[in-house]
Amino acid sequence: MNQMTRIDAALEARMANAIRALAMDAVEAAKSGHPGAPMGMADVATVLFNRFMRVDPADPAWPDRDRFVMSAGHGSMLVYAIHHMLGYDDMGMDQIRAFRQLGSRTAGHPEYGHAKGIEVTTGPLGQGIATAVGMALAERMAHARWPDLAGHHTYVIAGDGCLMEGISHEAIDLAGHLRLGRLIVLWDDNGITIDGATDLSTSTDQKARFAAAGWHVQAVDGHDRDAVAAAIQAAQGDDRPSMIACKTIIGFGAPNKQGGHDVHGAPLGADEIAAARAHLDWPHDPFTLPEDVTAAWAAIAARGAQARADWAARLETSANRAAFLAAQAAPDAQTLRTAIAGHCHQLVADRPKVATRKASEMALGVINAALPQTIGGSADLTGSNLTRTKDMQSIRAGDYAGRYVNYGIREHAMAAVMNGIALHGGFIPYGGTFLAFADYSRPAIRLGALMGVRVIHVMTHDSIGLGEDGPTHQPVEHLASLRAIPNLQVFRPADAVETAEAWEIALTSPTTPSVLALSRQNLPTVRTEDEDANRSRRGAYVLRATPAPRDVTLIATGSEVEIALAAADLLRADRIDAAVVSAPCFELFARQDRAYRQGVLCDAPRIGIEAAIRQGWDLFLRPEDGFVGMTGFGASAPAPALYRHFGITPEAVAELARNLIKGET
Amino acid sequence: MNQMTRIDAALEARMANAIRALAMDAVEAAKSGHPGAPMGMADVATVLFNRFMRVDPADPAWPDRDRFVMSAGHGSMLVYAIHHMLGYDDMGMDQIRAFRQLGSRTAGHPEYGHAKGIEVTTGPLGQGIATAVGMALAERMAHARWPDLAGHHTYVIAGDGCLMEGISHEAIDLAGHLRLGRLIVLWDDNGITIDGATDLSTSTDQKARFAAAGWHVQAVDGHDRDAVAAAIQAAQGDDRPSMIACKTIIGFGAPNKQGGHDVHGAPLGADEIAAARAHLDWPHDPFTLPEDVTAAWAAIAARGAQARADWAARLETSANRAAFLAAQAAPDAQTLRTAIAGHCHQLVADRPKVATRKASEMALGVINAALPQTIGGSADLTGSNLTRTKDMQSIRAGDYAGRYVNYGIREHAMAAVMNGIALHGGFIPYGGTFLAFADYSRPAIRLGALMGVRVIHVMTHDSIGLGEDGPTHQPVEHLASLRAIPNLQVFRPADAVETAEAWEIALTSPTTPSVLALSRQNLPTVRTEDEDANRSRRGAYVLRATPAPRDVTLIATGSEVEIALAAADLLRADRIDAAVVSAPCFELFARQDRAYRQGVLCDAPRIGIEAAIRQGWDLFLRPEDGFVGMTGFGASAPAPALYRHFGITPEAVAELARNLIKGET
Repeated sequence: MNQMTRIDAALEARMANAIRALAMDAVEAAKSGHPGAPMGMADVATVLFNRFMRVDPADPAWPDRDRFVMSAGHGSMLVYAIHHMLGYDDMGMDQIRAFRQLGSRTAGHPEYGHAKGIEVTTGPLGQGIATAVGMALAERMAHARWPDLAGHHTYVIAGDGCLMEGISHEAIDLAGHLRLGRLIVLWDDNGITIDGATDLSTSTDQKARFAAAGWHVQAVDGHDRDAVAAAIQAAQGDDRPSMIACKTIIGFGAPNKQGGHDVHGAPLGADEIAAARAHLDWPHDPFTLPEDVTAAWAAIAARGAQARADWAARLETSANRAAFLAAQAAPDAQTLRTAIAGHCHQLVADRPKVATRKASEMALGVINAALPQTIGGSADLTGSNLTRTKDMQSIRAGDYAGRYVNYGIREHAMAAVMNGIALHGGFIPYGGTFLAFADYSRPAIRLGALMGVRVIHVMTHDSIGLGEDGPTHQPVEHLASLRAIPNLQVFRPADAVETAEAWEIALTSPTTPSVLALSRQNLPTVRTEDEDANRSRRGAYVLRATPAPRDVTLIATGSEVEIALAAADLLRADRIDAAVVSAPCFELFARQDRAYRQGVLCDAPRIGIEAAIRQGWDLFLRPEDGFVGMTGFGASAPAPALYRHFGITPEAVAELARNLIKGET
Repeated sequence: MNQMTRIDAALEARMANAIRALAMDAVEAAKSGHPGAPMGMADVATVLFNRFMRVDPADPAWPDRDRFVMSAGHGSMLVYAIHHMLGYDDMGMDQIRAFRQLGSRTAGHPEYGHAKGIEVTTGPLGQGIATAVGMALAERMAHARWPDLAGHHTYVIAGDGCLMEGISHEAIDLAGHLRLGRLIVLWDDNGITIDGATDLSTSTDQKARFAAAGWHVQAVDGHDRDAVAAAIQAAQGDDRPSMIACKTIIGFGAPNKQGGHDVHGAPLGADEIAAARAHLDWPHDPFTLPEDVTAAWAAIAARGAQARADWAARLETSANRAAFLAAQAAPDAQTLRTAIAGHCHQLVADRPKVATRKASEMALGVINAALPQTIGGSADLTGSNLTRTKDMQSIRAGDYAGRYVNYGIREHAMAAVMNGIALHGGFIPYGGTFLAFADYSRPAIRLGALMGVRVIHVMTHDSIGLGEDGPTHQPVEHLASLRAIPNLQVFRPADAVETAEAWEIALTSPTTPSVLALSRQNLPTVRTEDEDANRSRRGAYVLRATPAPRDVTLIATGSEVEIALAAADLLRADRIDAAVVSAPCFELFARQDRAYRQGVLCDAPRIGIEAAIRQGWDLFLRPEDGFVGMTGFGASAPAPALYRHFGITPEAVAELARNLIKGET
């Protein structure tokens, strides 16, 4: 495809050695890092970029660029070396010299957003390959919608670690099933992991394994550049996703250390670096590149710039221009507000008693009609998560026009694929599973929070309220553990109105992923006042006010807001004025100013109510305050029996309130 | 092997129908549950038990029993029906009738410890098959040590969901590599998941996939009982782990619903149950079994009882008797105390400045010498986790005499396999990875906490103190998120003494798994008083006292205790008396009585210091107290630069203390 007609073999070899030199010198200067992978995969990466990749360093956000994912993220110096030589303007030699130092763009692992051209944060193994599946899927979805404007490849360098991790199974299974033919994985088959030879811990025939998942599989000598090029060419020509096993020598070029596990993650040392310079015939000083090599890498960038210009010209005259640009842009906040407000007016009028998972489906009916870029899905719990609205067709192999992904029973890959879809751009992904299985997705949820992507995790069956499935399926610590992740918004709406509000906030948070924790069981509409504002934006607010001064404040989330209201009714009979605060999002409340927070919480005794553990509730509660919730795992029984069994009832709340007011706890 | 010479085919068919009847009737009575899997796999399970399984309901803890793992845990009624018919004395028909009701032993998913014979808690998909790998590995390890006393099989029923989950890849890769020939997986190949046909979400050739991982693979009609028996027999005869693809019809016997996804997880309804009774020629009332069927199932139990008696006789005269029984027993607490105390006396004398990961290795030197039942391992970070003590040989295919498992880059499977080793008995497993990758292991850590197993997770590189690897590798929320899991002990020791104490507590906690969060960086010995008691047992204690009344209390964990001590020194110069509290285990401190806790914390202002988020620190801190730690993700730089950058320094602590005392925060 993009293969250049004439390759200067000697020059290309030196282009690869430039990667090796920068990698070993930067690691040496940092006194830490991983020279093994960049040196081992330098030939493969050079061929990939020199003969195939289409990127324009002057426009790193060009939507139709090829994507390159360094799934073996510890080999970050390979990325930085290439980006330096391609001419990304934020990747000067000062950055290479400052590898792994405070404030540099050259972090130990590639960090999305730290420097231009880094497509995804990698390091936790297996995440890169799974995220790339999302990128490759997004490319096919874009192609199905705007065929003249989307047609690029997603390339991945993956190591043994990536392929041992469980998430790789989920990712390759899904990619094979969806026949993502433009995904090409280059496996750094060096036979080495940290502990030693790979045969210490694995005997899997990776080629057979990928073939079993429906992939096109090849094997090459990863230091035979023409063979690598031929394999990539063949991979591009096959309509299945491709895996190319590249047999390499880890730390290639370090004559005394290459091929062993000591070269994986430690500086080579001055003597070995000198030996490598001699061995590679690389007489240049550290951090110094010969001009012809620099020029050759710059030519790749120039080719990319031309491709981008051609694409831009195509865009100008494309019939798809308006739709394409609209999809790339953030959803219009005002349009969404109007749609959600209309929906909420209707809810206040109707006051439905529905589970918040059902309320989510109702909100999605409005949202998916207003925003064509949403892509729904579920990890095989569609009928439980209620993530599919009508007219949402499933995406299938060869037909990517749909808007719904049947992710299969693959929570971890689902989260990573959603990260990839969001990173690719043009789409806003959401996907469903049970809240308890947030644990399966957690590494990818965390990575999404670290990267700051607009991904929405729909997590239903959010407490013991799911009932009979029992403690394995009942989240008790999951709200706390998700609230602990920085830059993640966790919503637990109390009714259909708050559910719609949570969706609105999640969709308009461009750099923060969101979790929506939704009930299995029906809940009454508690937001009965007709209003235009999204009250959930403050994180917590007074749902039921009392004459000042109030006697007690009951603070609850989700399904427990109903209990708080009932407890307030019980207390009213005792002439106790209990205000009820609904707290759908702790993270947003924490960001409010002190005056707002004090106005909501006041000085009276407080009781937190959530069918989960107390950890994290000190945002609202002082040591002398009370909490009604869980202290351990749940149990298997119908939901009402469980609420009674664990003492999460209006009666228990009212009793605790009376005692707190009397000072008797 | 155990195949009976004559099988009454008609009777065996009715034995299977008894499972179907109990499953559909119990689900109907509960108005919730999963009839599909028990009905579909009834033939396979009946053949397995009728012709192969060796269990004795009168002695469910018999160490050499065959293990049966219902990895597709939603099919729990299959287990309960079988256990009822085998005659487990806690599984009367009252329990079957009380399926999924509060207080019953028949929870929605099988819960370890709720009823005899349940080998492992399942429900979160993929956990069962991975835990079974641990059981099968433990069997081989036992066999290598005491060949006359250990020689059983581990059988697993796994569904499509189990095989889609990523953990299944890690588990089968490891099992194939270690050639666990006595592990036999029966795949319920029914072509159905919750969302519909499996071809909605997967195209993987499971048989080819298992073969790629080194497994022996067969495929049979799961309703042809003789074929199933022949396949199990062949599986027993092969020295590789075996996967038998059992083609089944989900909900077999429900004539109008079988084969569809509606039969997976909902009651059949009265009409369909009546139709099934007719279709299966099963004229018996609900919860009523014909005598010949009951007798046939009882005969299986009698055969197991005889096998157990034969084994017990062998044990009596075995040369391995003493060693075997010692391994089965809990480690002797007094012996361990003596060993650890001796080690600590030496540490107090030597005052080494070592990372707590190194201190852990030193403690393991003592422990592994004293306790032959410990089994170490690491997810490919042996040299970083320092989990291998000298003389620990790796376990390899065909050679299970070693004590170290090279788990590969498979954190999730490692945790599940350790659960399985612990559940099997005879061994105490511990395994290492980085603390940040606790997220990968989390579903299995949680399941271990729910089951209550003695498993020790060694998690090094426990903060930004790991330095240059950056935010993907730096835990900031992991301590909080692990402390959130009920029945899990999280230790963060401050020095070599506390590290040894943490190991002692972990090893002597029979029903609570432990996490040891250990530093990469060197730490001084802060426990400089020679004493005989394990002070960490109280969870937190005054490490440096002051004259009463103290001015401020500095509470820290792990690597930050050194900072607290240095801050106290700074404050001393200002004539401020700062007590320092070391808090290696929040869970243990929370269990102390109010008087002890108040004695440790006192009334003076308090400052918590931990290079992590504050969540969970309200165990120690009041709203007016201070905290020095992290508020978001880390960064890539040398550790000292990061501590300065994030303001976690003695100077910052001292400054905050001065302000708190002045009332200026």
